[in-house]
Amino acid sequence: MAAQQIRETVERYVNLVATGPTADILALYAPDAVVEDPIGSDPRHGHQAIGELYAALEQLERKTVLDAVRANGNHAAVSFTLVTEAGGSRMTLSVIDVMEFDDAGLIKNMRAYWGPDDMQVDPA
Amino acid sequence: MAAQQIRETVERYVNLVATGPTADILALYAPDAVVEDPIGSDPRHGHQAIGELYAALEQLERKTVLDAVRANGNHAAVSFTLVTEAGGSRMTLSVIDVMEFDDAGLIKNMRAYWGPDDMQVDPA
Repeated sequence: MAAQQIRETVERYVNLVATGPTADILALYAPDAVVEDPIGSDPRHGHQAIGELYAALEQLERKTVLDAVRANGNHAAVSFTLVTEAGGSRMTLSVIDVMEFDDAGLIKNMRAYWGPDDMQVDPA
Repeated sequence: MAAQQIRETVERYVNLVATGPTADILALYAPDAVVEDPIGSDPRHGHQAIGELYAALEQLERKTVLDAVRANGNHAAVSFTLVTEAGGSRMTLSVIDVMEFDDAGLIKNMRAYWGPDDMQVDPA
């Protein structure tokens, strides 16, 4: 995988978290991918379990703001912020995701670094 | 480990990369820590091998700028920029490090996400 391809996939991922149907996000993951979100939680294996994470967002007004992408070989880390609105409140979640890619450019695994202190809830 | 302690250790680490003698940085690592810097390179095991990374910086004019820390449980990710000057040129390296801590609050392992595209060299 060329570095540029990995960076483009990561940027596409962050865009899709804001705009995409779950199926489009899952298309970036290998079928047997493993996701730990947040870091330290039980890993989710495969598209069905991973899809639950993103399906929960589909109902919400949301946007993402990309901060930084760092990449080397088949590895990347991305810092971004997700803002969602629902029921009169706005949630701002700032995360750093790290990803490993397979040779086809699909995400093999993703670990999302965020904790309670990285989430803020305000009136919308 | 309380989240606040982990965040403080991460901030201390980023400060020490700019200001610290190597010994002070190594004091943040467990004796059997493993460091992969950059991600995808051969891991360094233990203080002696890890110390070579930081000793290389000691000769240089340098500073660090902290961007963001995300933390949950015994895990943290930090985005920061290291600027070094030597021999009339300035190197700017933007990285995301991920770290796992042991129960004593020492770094068990660290993986540094950066590649050639995350480094810039200019006249100082």
